Amino acid sequence: MRPDNRAVDSLRPVTIERNYTRYAEGSVLIAFGHTRVLCTASLEDKVPPFLRDTGSGWVTAEYGMLPRSAHGRIQRDAVKKGRALEISRLIGRSLRCITNLAALGERQITLDCDVIQADGGTRTAAITGAYVALHDACAKLIREGILQQSPIAGQCAAVSVGIVNGEPLLDLCYDEDSVADVDMNLVMREDGRFIEVQGSAEGEAFSRDMMNTMFDLAEKGARELFALQQKALGNE
Amino acid sequence: MRPDNRAVDSLRPVTIERNYTRYAEGSVLIAFGHTRVLCTASLEDKVPPFLRDTGSGWVTAEYGMLPRSAHGRIQRDAVKKGRALEISRLIGRSLRCITNLAALGERQITLDCDVIQADGGTRTAAITGAYVALHDACAKLIREGILQQSPIAGQCAAVSVGIVNGEPLLDLCYDEDSVADVDMNLVMREDGRFIEVQGSAEGEAFSRDMMNTMFDLAEKGARELFALQQKALGNE
Amino acid sequence: MRPDNRAVDSLRPVTIERNYTRYAEGSVLIAFGHTRVLCTASLEDKVPPFLRDTGSGWVTAEYGMLPRSAHGRIQRDAVKKGRALEISRLIGRSLRCITNLAALGERQITLDCDVIQADGGTRTAAITGAYVALHDACAKLIREGILQQSPIAGQCAAVSVGIVNGEPLLDLCYDEDSVADVDMNLVMREDGRFIEVQGSAEGEAFSRDMMNTMFDLAEKGARELFALQQKALGNE
Amino acid sequence: MRPDNRAVDSLRPVTIERNYTRYAEGSVLIAFGHTRVLCTASLEDKVPPFLRDTGSGWVTAEYGMLPRSAHGRIQRDAVKKGRALEISRLIGRSLRCITNLAALGERQITLDCDVIQADGGTRTAAITGAYVALHDACAKLIREGILQQSPIAGQCAAVSVGIVNGEPLLDLCYDEDSVADVDMNLVMREDGRFIEVQGSAEGEAFSRDMMNTMFDLAEKGARELFALQQKALGNE
Amino acid sequence: MRPDNRAVDSLRPVTIERNYTRYAEGSVLIAFGHTRVLCTASLEDKVPPFLRDTGSGWVTAEYGMLPRSAHGRIQRDAVKKGRALEISRLIGRSLRCITNLAALGERQITLDCDVIQADGGTRTAAITGAYVALHDACAKLIREGILQQSPIAGQCAAVSVGIVNGEPLLDLCYDEDSVADVDMNLVMREDGRFIEVQGSAEGEAFSRDMMNTMFDLAEKGARELFALQQKALGNE
Amino acid sequence: MRPDNRAVDSLRPVTIERNYTRYAEGSVLIAFGHTRVLCTASLEDKVPPFLRDTGSGWVTAEYGMLPRSAHGRIQRDAVKKGRALEISRLIGRSLRCITNLAALGERQITLDCDVIQADGGTRTAAITGAYVALHDACAKLIREGILQQSPIAGQCAAVSVGIVNGEPLLDLCYDEDSVADVDMNLVMREDGRFIEVQGSAEGEAFSRDMMNTMFDLAEKGARELFALQQKALGNE
Repeated sequence: MRPDNRAVDSLRPVTIERNYTRYAEGSVLIAFGHTRVLCTASLEDKVPPFLRDTGSGWVTAEYGMLPRSAHGRIQRDAVKKGRALEISRLIGRSLRCITNLAALGERQITLDCDVIQADGGTRTAAITGAYVALHDACAKLIREGILQQSPIAGQCAAVSVGIVNGEPLLDLCYDEDSVADVDMNLVMREDGRFIEVQGSAEGEAFSRDMMNTMFDLAEKGARELFALQQKALGNE
Repeated sequence: MRPDNRAVDSLRPVTIERNYTRYAEGSVLIAFGHTRVLCTASLEDKVPPFLRDTGSGWVTAEYGMLPRSAHGRIQRDAVKKGRALEISRLIGRSLRCITNLAALGERQITLDCDVIQADGGTRTAAITGAYVALHDACAKLIREGILQQSPIAGQCAAVSVGIVNGEPLLDLCYDEDSVADVDMNLVMREDGRFIEVQGSAEGEAFSRDMMNTMFDLAEKGARELFALQQKALGNE
Repeated sequence: MRPDNRAVDSLRPVTIERNYTRYAEGSVLIAFGHTRVLCTASLEDKVPPFLRDTGSGWVTAEYGMLPRSAHGRIQRDAVKKGRALEISRLIGRSLRCITNLAALGERQITLDCDVIQADGGTRTAAITGAYVALHDACAKLIREGILQQSPIAGQCAAVSVGIVNGEPLLDLCYDEDSVADVDMNLVMREDGRFIEVQGSAEGEAFSRDMMNTMFDLAEKGARELFALQQKALGNE
Repeated sequence: MRPDNRAVDSLRPVTIERNYTRYAEGSVLIAFGHTRVLCTASLEDKVPPFLRDTGSGWVTAEYGMLPRSAHGRIQRDAVKKGRALEISRLIGRSLRCITNLAALGERQITLDCDVIQADGGTRTAAITGAYVALHDACAKLIREGILQQSPIAGQCAAVSVGIVNGEPLLDLCYDEDSVADVDMNLVMREDGRFIEVQGSAEGEAFSRDMMNTMFDLAEKGARELFALQQKALGNE
Repeated sequence: MRPDNRAVDSLRPVTIERNYTRYAEGSVLIAFGHTRVLCTASLEDKVPPFLRDTGSGWVTAEYGMLPRSAHGRIQRDAVKKGRALEISRLIGRSLRCITNLAALGERQITLDCDVIQADGGTRTAAITGAYVALHDACAKLIREGILQQSPIAGQCAAVSVGIVNGEPLLDLCYDEDSVADVDMNLVMREDGRFIEVQGSAEGEAFSRDMMNTMFDLAEKGARELFALQQKALGNE
Repeated sequence: MRPDNRAVDSLRPVTIERNYTRYAEGSVLIAFGHTRVLCTASLEDKVPPFLRDTGSGWVTAEYGMLPRSAHGRIQRDAVKKGRALEISRLIGRSLRCITNLAALGERQITLDCDVIQADGGTRTAAITGAYVALHDACAKLIREGILQQSPIAGQCAAVSVGIVNGEPLLDLCYDEDSVADVDMNLVMREDGRFIEVQGSAEGEAFSRDMMNTMFDLAEKGARELFALQQKALGNE
């Protein structure tokens, strides 16, 4: 029995609220159950040095947790350290994978994903919400006549799966995550292909069979998230 | 005429939402117009080195802005620099002034004030909201039988006043603040006395008469905030 | 009775020594009693990025304490932290307020205020001395024919006032400051108007009456400092 | 055709040299083709704060690249940044997964993996070599009578796989890695189970079929590495 | 001809002012011509971790330059970087060499040497002044009955020598130092033995004959400094 | 009797292995007994700001120790601190002294000296090996037709000497170095002149006679190193 009585293959309730703040080109508050992440897309007319004068743009991300988003207080300077940087890089890579950077032109979009409340799955919520924020920022570029066509070349969403007490589960909450034997995060495209697969054994290594079961769960969850993103964008 | 048609001595609409997040001992989302600040109170059973074995507690604060809370994107590492530190120190001093630290016992309460959206007056909103969060954290200590009496020994709130085009105004929004000749922040007690007065001439120095007019405005605004805090706490 | 038998409205003995070091464009050693601060003005032919190609100049300040300027030794890396940064920003704002930055042209003057010995009132001594150092640096620009007219558009000085055992005092020394109920620093113009007002309750909030008494003391002290600055500049 | 004429399912020549330096409790120079990594195991009689007085030990890792291990010179301070930290955490997790930390007692073993020369696959070489260094450090603890039984509870090795021009390849060198559509690193146990799976699409997302083919390649490579580790340890 | 008409084997005018500031256990302003360095000795009842519970004390030093002590302004954060650290270590080693650390007991004396004005020879002035400050701090320990005997076991002073246009010179000022072919700093004991010798060719390597001539000059200068230190200490 | 039975005036066995790694323009592994240092020369088409548009080049160095090169593990972030910076600066100055920077053109060569194993004399091994790496990098510039003539204008090598139990010794190993009364490092030119002399008394000051004996030892050692460098370069 899961803490909230969910079926093993159920996502938590997901909500996606667009235009959560006023200034960002895209601003999305996404919730996966109690996990809440504010994803903003900021457009700047500059690119990192390695892209200058190439005509190509860049998409990058920064992930942080508010100091009291979790059970215990987190030091602010921890944000730039190991785990946060790792997640920032994951979000950036994932969103770049569905963006046509040449079509974006010499512009940079930064996706800031700040965790308001953490109950497991913050990175998967962040990627799923950042997609919507990126979409809104690009739509604004088109609306303003700066671009003719959207540089977005795919749809992406992310889910976590794991094995708890020998049982594969979809979308782990914190209480499940903290006792999981395996913790896996998957970023997927709307066509069912994988963008990122990151699985770690926490104590117990996992067999290929287990991995296949987890992939099945992830695909189911991702399909539901793709539909929720489309609905939030008014494309039902 | 003010941008939102307010009278010169009117506050913007103020909302105070308690229990905004789940884990913090106190968690308040406060809005002064478009300005929104999340104020959390975190309790820890440790005190800074200079208070160890004194029996006395500590109240401290950290202020930060989310990267896209403002018109342009703010670098994350700027949070620890000059302005943010100055405001963190102001919030901490103000709340300590209405707390009986000895009655708190050897515990520390950290007030994290994170700006979700900035439209002027973030520090005054932060102090006003932090008071409510601190109140909730202390109420929890009493509810759990850890303390018999609240260590809170007063009520505090903060407002900004300023002079724009020669006219003294209460509670400046960003558009007013950015062209103000004088910018003043006041932290007040419920008995009308001052906890902090910080006034800066931006270009034009100000006379003592102007200062008196600004103090009058501030007192009016603070009285309204005291009532709103009480209402939020269910003490109407 | 004050530790040095001063009247409540007396400044400590003030000395201002110009040309204290050889290389700076302005170099002033100022003493407020035992407090001694070296204020140097350094001219550079560059401005911060936000002023490039605007034709306007900049005045900035950095405040530091020598490691053994105080009773106990201070770590060197503390200089860049909270309190020092806050004071640096205060000094910079104050001096900019009496400078015509456009008339300075695209140049930056940095006022380094390094505390040789600290006995209370280091920031007010720093501002009062920095004014003289800035004056000397500008005089040199005129003497060398680089500017035709001085960009200095006013005179400023700073004093501290406070309440100790219920009694308002002018220019607190360290022993007074460390037990004060209220600590206030004021930066004033030669015309009696205020540039900065910073008052903090340390434990006891203060009434508007007390504030008025403190403003009276501050005005008396500032007038004396204006005369001492003029005398040091040979304008008696 | 691969740059070195290897078959798609061939590892590069692997050499494992034990006791490469004198002072470390374990010291292994491992080469995967031109990639060379020095893996040292350092034993200390202290554990991180969260383990004090628990009786349990810790295994951690730090990964770095010598400044000129790669085609262009790398800044030294980059070592603590994103990518290096991410790899350090991966190595640490992997080795902890095959260590019985309680059996280690309150001791910490740090695995420093310093890249002497980088030609792709540095993290997989590091993990594979670190296993041997960890083994030697534990053997020393037994030899000296400090432990009765080895805390090592499994064997681990790591390989990279990827897709280049649509073709799945084992153990990519730099020239292959830099044009790969998919880059995947797998850490495996001697029983065929997975400890870590990290796959990233670089431009092209990958299907589940492709993933299965890559897993097959990885299992073949890992089996060969297990044998080479055993041979290096004299257990042929 | 030297810039100030000195003979090749003459020191600049040296002044040593004790008790320059009030709080430090030793406080000396030393001048070598225009070079002025404030040397303070701070006593603390703690030692670095490696000396805890050994009964032995420690003498350490920190060297810094005020931002406008030199011709151009120096950034404050440069103080902790290469050159300043190198000089700090030199000063500390030199003073430890004439101190009986066991006789000092578990105490640390920190010698802060802050350059007020720099005209060449700042490190030699610093060492020469720090000796007097250390002496005063130790005398205070005896005067207060904390120690029975001085832990100072020798006298030390430092001079620079160099070769300019092929000519060996004693005590170089900045204009000489900046064009010198060889720059050498020597720390000597009162018995004529060497504590430190640091000579660097700046462009032109130097022969053993030249080195011998420079040693002769240095010995002459050091003897004069020993006498000046004794005179300052009232031991003429 | 020395630990390895060497005569007082004998170097340890020295080996110099060129082309130790593939990518650097010069790459030398040098051993002085158990001390092993990897010296790489990296060529870049840029110079520090102070040399831009002067036509002149720059030679700089960075020295580091691998975390477990020594008896105890060294923290990675210690590399940028005092001792390492001091040695980095020494290596850079020494190599610049035998380089015609104008002849190098606006290019920078960085000599990274990373200690693989430390048994005393790491800085002298580093300088001696860096000379060979610099030579190889310059030879490559000529081979590729970028320069017509080598910018190398001399040969340099470094040795340590010291006094242990009153006896002057050449090339101290760690066990000797750690009990030495005097520790001296000398950098010499092939013509017998000195580039750097750095001698420190560790407890006991040293007389001029002792210094002369040490210089004699150093000259003998340096002559042998010059021959070994030439042999390694194929110039026997």
